[in-house]
Amino acid sequence: MRLANIYRHIKKDLERVEDLLSQSMATNQLELKQSSTHLLRAGGKRMRPVFVLLSGRFGTSNKQHVIDVAVALELIHMATLVHDDVIDNASLRRGQPTVKAQWDNRVAMYAGDYIISRALHIISDIQILKVHQELSKAIFLMCEGEIDQIRDLYKPQQSVKQYLSRIKRKTALLMSISCQLGALVSDAPPKVIQHLKLYGYYVGMAFQLTDDVLDFTGDEETLGKPAGSDLRQGNVTLPVIYAMQHLPEVERQLLDSFLSSQGKHPLTSETLLLVQKAGGNEFTLELSKRYLNKALDELKKLPSVQEQELLKMLAEFIVGRNY
Amino acid sequence: MRLANIYRHIKKDLERVEDLLSQSMATNQLELKQSSTHLLRAGGKRMRPVFVLLSGRFGTSNKQHVIDVAVALELIHMATLVHDDVIDNASLRRGQPTVKAQWDNRVAMYAGDYIISRALHIISDIQILKVHQELSKAIFLMCEGEIDQIRDLYKPQQSVKQYLSRIKRKTALLMSISCQLGALVSDAPPKVIQHLKLYGYYVGMAFQLTDDVLDFTGDEETLGKPAGSDLRQGNVTLPVIYAMQHLPEVERQLLDSFLSSQGKHPLTSETLLLVQKAGGNEFTLELSKRYLNKALDELKKLPSVQEQELLKMLAEFIVGRNY
Repeated sequence: MRLANIYRHIKKDLERVEDLLSQSMATNQLELKQSSTHLLRAGGKRMRPVFVLLSGRFGTSNKQHVIDVAVALELIHMATLVHDDVIDNASLRRGQPTVKAQWDNRVAMYAGDYIISRALHIISDIQILKVHQELSKAIFLMCEGEIDQIRDLYKPQQSVKQYLSRIKRKTALLMSISCQLGALVSDAPPKVIQHLKLYGYYVGMAFQLTDDVLDFTGDEETLGKPAGSDLRQGNVTLPVIYAMQHLPEVERQLLDSFLSSQGKHPLTSETLLLVQKAGGNEFTLELSKRYLNKALDELKKLPSVQEQELLKMLAEFIVGRNY
Repeated sequence: MRLANIYRHIKKDLERVEDLLSQSMATNQLELKQSSTHLLRAGGKRMRPVFVLLSGRFGTSNKQHVIDVAVALELIHMATLVHDDVIDNASLRRGQPTVKAQWDNRVAMYAGDYIISRALHIISDIQILKVHQELSKAIFLMCEGEIDQIRDLYKPQQSVKQYLSRIKRKTALLMSISCQLGALVSDAPPKVIQHLKLYGYYVGMAFQLTDDVLDFTGDEETLGKPAGSDLRQGNVTLPVIYAMQHLPEVERQLLDSFLSSQGKHPLTSETLLLVQKAGGNEFTLELSKRYLNKALDELKKLPSVQEQELLKMLAEFIVGRNY
């Protein structure tokens, strides 16, 4: 199973999305031009546009608005990537930001703002008020989630519920709204919109759960970063929460002491192995499968058209991927 | 002449704006709640809402949408203040950010994003597409302006044109769009909208020019910061550009050497006095007056209602203020 098998069914639409992405980031401002070119070249799987385009085939009308929504949601995704990079530790050299790093950070912040406003601009001629209401709501919920995540960095005691609430806003919300808005602007029936919205939510949860396991089990080459990067940066994911709850006292203290040091102690390979040993990865993948099944259940309630099958393949690919 | 004389004519509307501002920033997220409470308590002159409300009286319809636009534009103004504070030198202690400062910066970034999305949400039920098109366009132009400003920090050779283009996007644009959108959602005639839009632009330019002089001439107590703060932070405003072009070679080099050091050399009171001596303040105030007159000329083309007179008083107050 390869993503290309899904993508070839929407090839022309995806090409239009790609063209519009370039156009919509066009600017004469040098620094913005550089960063947007960089972002576009970096590519990515364009998952959100694919969700929008496939969901947009359950209705009958306004192909152009479906494309516009696909572009807008990819732009918003890009903006979150740009803002996520602001003031991360990578930009600090031994805790000491150079003047350049400070400037780069400020530029990155405004570049993210710029991309968000471009996203808004491209959908500003869509008359359906619900599109704007749902999208702005999604953005402020995502912001709340980001701040929760910052507040919860390195916190040793966290509940599964807190974690799920975080990944919902961090990841699942944007995938959910991609499906919802694609269907909405194509004028799909309300029930179909609702099922697609839920499908996107469940797939998003399953995706992030798998992703958080891959951070421990993937190899550096395919991940593009060393294993355990999330934990190293203080992001306490479900495998870690599980380990904190299930490791024997002595071993738990090792993990606890890393977290309590707020990342000042190095994360040893011993501690990383402990997390693996605790069984949190298996627990997390099991939960991911449950969300995947919920997503597939929603699909069963949709008309059995080709797009239904493509969304099924997409969900299975996303959750079963090993990179 | 006091602002209160203008404000009392729109007292009830301003109270509704204030209520809605609080409501629209309501959140259960602790850090966001703290920062939004802080912002609201800090007050401010609510100049953008006043522009919206007064402009919104030139049409006949939809009072609620005028209020909503007033709230949205004040929120966007607040978001720019929050983002302006991110990674400024104040948050660095001897160039060394504490973990807390890093977190605070990230929280401030997302708090700004949150406030922007709240602004969008509050106007998301306005059917007039032009409102959304113009607003998103204004935001991306403002972002371009912010990045230009960062790029131009400490640059000794700058043209008046570059400076005017920066303050246009930094300040005048949001004031201009406040007047434009207030009139637009109240269904004012197209010509009236156009005059108000230009009025806002000219007032905004005059305001920023005055502001840039006050940074040199104001005293620390009323400014809330030491004189010369802009220059100290590398913001090369018109009085400095003028000084660079008109000071005798030997004195110019003093100023040049401060700028070339990128703020590493301290800004001496001698250098500050040089800028004053060069006559740039007078030149800048003269230009400010010219913009003020252009603003008043636009007002003359409006129906002679009470609001026309209030906008005139407001412009004269803003430009003539000494704090």
